[in-house]
Amino acid sequence: MAKQKKQPRPKAETPKGFRDYFGAEVTQRADMLRAIAGVYHRYGFDALESSAVETVEALGKFLPDVDRPNEGVFAWQEDEGDWLALRYDLTAPLARVYAQHRNDLPTPYRRYAMGPVWRNEKPGPGRFRQFYQCDADTVGSASMAADAEICAMLADTLEAVGIPRGDYIIRVNNRKVLNGVLHNVFGFKNESEDAQLDAVWETVHKREAVLRTIDKFDKVGREGVLELLTTGRKDASGAFIDGVGLSEDQAKPVLAFLTSKGATTAETIANLQAAIGESPVGEDGIAELRQIADLLAAQGYGPDRIVIDPSVVRGLGYYTGPVYEAELTFDILDDKGRKRQFGSVAGGGRYDDLVKRFTGQEVPATGISIGVDRLLAALREKGRMQAQATGPVVVTVMDRDRMADYQAMAAELRAVGIRAEVYLGNPKNFGNQLKYADKRNSPIAIIEGADEKAKGIVQVKDLILGAKIAESATLEEWKERPSQFEVPRADLVARIKELLDSQS
Amino acid sequence: MAKQKKQPRPKAETPKGFRDYFGAEVTQRADMLRAIAGVYHRYGFDALESSAVETVEALGKFLPDVDRPNEGVFAWQEDEGDWLALRYDLTAPLARVYAQHRNDLPTPYRRYAMGPVWRNEKPGPGRFRQFYQCDADTVGSASMAADAEICAMLADTLEAVGIPRGDYIIRVNNRKVLNGVLHNVFGFKNESEDAQLDAVWETVHKREAVLRTIDKFDKVGREGVLELLTTGRKDASGAFIDGVGLSEDQAKPVLAFLTSKGATTAETIANLQAAIGESPVGEDGIAELRQIADLLAAQGYGPDRIVIDPSVVRGLGYYTGPVYEAELTFDILDDKGRKRQFGSVAGGGRYDDLVKRFTGQEVPATGISIGVDRLLAALREKGRMQAQATGPVVVTVMDRDRMADYQAMAAELRAVGIRAEVYLGNPKNFGNQLKYADKRNSPIAIIEGADEKAKGIVQVKDLILGAKIAESATLEEWKERPSQFEVPRADLVARIKELLDSQS
Repeated sequence: MAKQKKQPRPKAETPKGFRDYFGAEVTQRADMLRAIAGVYHRYGFDALESSAVETVEALGKFLPDVDRPNEGVFAWQEDEGDWLALRYDLTAPLARVYAQHRNDLPTPYRRYAMGPVWRNEKPGPGRFRQFYQCDADTVGSASMAADAEICAMLADTLEAVGIPRGDYIIRVNNRKVLNGVLHNVFGFKNESEDAQLDAVWETVHKREAVLRTIDKFDKVGREGVLELLTTGRKDASGAFIDGVGLSEDQAKPVLAFLTSKGATTAETIANLQAAIGESPVGEDGIAELRQIADLLAAQGYGPDRIVIDPSVVRGLGYYTGPVYEAELTFDILDDKGRKRQFGSVAGGGRYDDLVKRFTGQEVPATGISIGVDRLLAALREKGRMQAQATGPVVVTVMDRDRMADYQAMAAELRAVGIRAEVYLGNPKNFGNQLKYADKRNSPIAIIEGADEKAKGIVQVKDLILGAKIAESATLEEWKERPSQFEVPRADLVARIKELLDSQS
Repeated sequence: MAKQKKQPRPKAETPKGFRDYFGAEVTQRADMLRAIAGVYHRYGFDALESSAVETVEALGKFLPDVDRPNEGVFAWQEDEGDWLALRYDLTAPLARVYAQHRNDLPTPYRRYAMGPVWRNEKPGPGRFRQFYQCDADTVGSASMAADAEICAMLADTLEAVGIPRGDYIIRVNNRKVLNGVLHNVFGFKNESEDAQLDAVWETVHKREAVLRTIDKFDKVGREGVLELLTTGRKDASGAFIDGVGLSEDQAKPVLAFLTSKGATTAETIANLQAAIGESPVGEDGIAELRQIADLLAAQGYGPDRIVIDPSVVRGLGYYTGPVYEAELTFDILDDKGRKRQFGSVAGGGRYDDLVKRFTGQEVPATGISIGVDRLLAALREKGRMQAQATGPVVVTVMDRDRMADYQAMAAELRAVGIRAEVYLGNPKNFGNQLKYADKRNSPIAIIEGADEKAKGIVQVKDLILGAKIAESATLEEWKERPSQFEVPRADLVARIKELLDSQS
C-alpha cells in the first residue's frame, strides 16, 4: 500500500444551484405529492416512475455539431460511448417509455409521474437546478374529453392540496386559434409549417416574433403589444425596442385574439370567431375550445374555476392544440413588501408529435405538469402551512444508568402514536437537554430523576406554555396553569396525550 | 434559419442498467416508504432531502491521479470546472449536510432520508444502477442507547411494512471485538492503525485478508475458513486458493470469534470474552454489545428479534463499533426452483469519522440503511403483495355525443372515492373498449347506449366474475349471478359500491 497523500479538506457545500430540504419541507412535499397522486389515481391514471437517467439521444438534446450536449441538461459520457443525462422534465421520458413499451401498454395510456427533474441552467434566487414536477398525461387520445378531463382534474387537485375555490383559476387557450389568426395575418394557404418553411422563412421568423411579443401582453398591455407588433416601442428606461414590422391591419387580429375574453364563454367564442376570419384551422381551434367548455359546464366546472381565456400565451409556441394554465389569484407580498399575484403553478396542453420522434407515428397526447415546489411556496406564503413541524416529546436523561427506563417511556408513548425520543447526547449538562428540546420544537419534556423515581412520579414540562410564559404571561396565568407539573408514572401516557390535545 | 439535417430516429430505450417502474410497483414502493417514514418519524427522526447531485469532492470519490472520477459514481464536469456526481448512497450526503449546517442543527442530529441512489457499476440480472435507500442515522451521540434504538426501530419498521415477527432477525456484532481478537493474534500494542501503519504493513495486509476470509464463513464454513486462514484450500472446482498464512494458533481465536454465538446472550458474551483474551479494545466491544443487549432486553426486544451474533461479518471492515444486519429468514424459491433464504434487507452500524473529513472533528454517528427494493421483492415473492393493482371502473362510450353524460358518471363514482374513468380512445369499436378495460385490470365496465338511456338504466359488467366464468365456471353459476346486469341510473353509485365490496 502506497502512502496516501494528504489531501486538503473538502468543502461542505451543495453544488451551486442545489439545496437541501429539512423536516417539514420534506414531509409537506411528500404529503402534497400523495394528495395529488390520490386525485390522479382516482381519475384512472396509473403511476409511472422512469429512471432519472436517460440517454441524451432519447431526451432529444443531442446536437451533432456540439462536442458536448449540455444545452440545459446535465450530461456525461459513458465509458462505452453513450451520452447519458438527467431528465429535464417528465414529458420526454414519457415519450421514450411509451415508444419503448407501447405494445404492452393500454391505449389510451393514462399515466402520472412525480419526482425531481434537473436543469443545467444558471441558478438564481429561488431558482434551483433540481425541482419537483408532478405530471399527468393521456397518450393516444385525440378526444377533447381528454383535455377537459385534465382541466377538471387540475381543479380538483388544487382544491385537494388546500387551494380553496376562488383562489385559483385555470385558463384555457388554443394554439389552433392563434394559428388561424396568424393564417389571416400572413395569408398562409395552410398551416403546415414544414411544407412552407423554406419559402416563407421571413414570415415564420415574424410569426415567432409575434409569439414572443404577445407573451409580453401581461407586462406591456394592449398598447405596448400593438407598438411592439408594428413599429416599435420605448421601454421604461427610454431604450427603443424594435417592432416586429407588422402593419396595423396585420397587428389588429392578433390583438383582437389576445383580448377576446368576454364576460361569458359564448361572448369569448364570438370574439375569437371574429379574430380568425375565415381560417379552417382557426375554426377547428374554436370548435375544440367550445367542446371543452361544454364538457366542463356539463360537469359543473364553471368559469369561476376553468375559463376560456385567449390571453394565456405561455405554451402556445410548444403545444399543438389546447393549452392550459393554472394561476393562483390571491395576493402575496413580494420581497419588497409589495402586493402581487402569486401566478402560475401548473401548465400543460396538447402535443401530438410526442412519440413520432421515436416511431414515426403521430400519437395524440395531452397533459399537465404541476410545479409542486411553487405550490408549496404559495401555501407557505399564505400561512396555510406551518413553517416548522412539531418535534418529538423528549424524555430527558437524569441518570445515565437508567437509559432503559427512559427508553421504556418513549416506547410507551410511541405505542399510542405519540412521537417521542430519549435524549441521546451527553446528559451531563441538563440545560443542554432543554436547549435540544427547544431546537427540536418539542412540545413536552419529561424528567425523572432519582427523587421522582422514588416517589413513582415524573415531571412533565409543557414547553409550549413555557415559551408563552417566557414571552408574555403574567404571574396569575403562571399560577393557574403551571408549565411544569408532576404526574404519576403510571398515568404518563394518558396525561401526555391530554396535554398534546390541549396544545393543538 | 439553416435547414435542419435529418437525423436518424432515436432508440426508445432506458440506458443500460436502468429500468422503468409501472403502476403497483410505484405505489407499493411509495406506500412502503411512507410506512417506514412513519416509524422513523415516531422515533423522533427528522426528514432530510439532500440534492441528488453533490460535488465529487464532497462525496470523497475524487482520485487526484485519475483524469475522470468514475470510481463507482456517475460524474461530470461543470463548465466552470467543478466535478459533480450523483450520490451513491445517503450517508456521504449526510456527512456533507451535517458539516455544512452543523451550527443550525440540533445535537444529536437524528435524521431520516429516502430516495434513489446511483451506482456506476456493471449492471447484472436484478442489479440496477439506480435503486432506493431508506436511511436513519443519529449523528453526535456516542451512546450505545443510540445503537440499541436503531436496532429496535429497525425491528418495528420491518413489522410495519408487513414482515411478521419470526420472519426476520436482526443480528448485531461489533468491530471492536474483532479488533480485540486481531490484537491478540497479531500482538499489537494498541489498535490505532494510523500510528502503526507503516511499521506493521505486513500485519495490516494480513488483517485485511483475515476480514475478507471470514466474510466467506457463510459459504465455506468453519473448516473452510480455518484452511483459508492458514495454509490454503482446494475449492469445489479443484483449484487451490492460497491461505492467509496464519499459524493454527493465530487462526483459532478468529474462528472462536466467528462461532461464538451461544444459546443465550450471556453464553455468547462469555465465548467472546474467551476469544479476545486480554485486549482492552475487545473489552470495550464486549461492553458495548452487552449494553445494547441489556437495553433491548429491557424494552422487550428479545433474541427472537435482535440477537448478538458474531458471525455477521458484512460491514466489519467499514464500521468502527456495533454493526447490524437485518435478514429475512423465510425461504423463497430461486430462479431454478431451489429453496433459499431471502437474506439481508438492511444493514448499518457505527461510524465515528463521518464528518471528520470536512471539519477535522470526530463526530460519533450510527445508522441503518434499508434496501427498499429488496424488501419489496421479498414481499412480492412471498405473495404478500399483489403483483397488479386493480384498475379503474371504466365507463364505456356508446354514443360519442354524450361524453358529458359518461363523464358525469365517472365524476359521481370518484366523488365517493371510487377510481373511475371514461374510455378516451376511439369509441367506434366496442370490443376495443372492453379489451382496454381488461388490460387495465378493471373490475367493472359500465355501458349506457341509447336504449338504456331511454329506459333510465345502465348495464353493469362485472369483469372479475366475467373472467372467472370464462375460465372455469359452470352454467349454473352463470345463471345464479350474471356477470352483466341492469341497474337504474339513479342507483349506479350505490350498486357499483356494493359490487366492488363483494369483489374484494
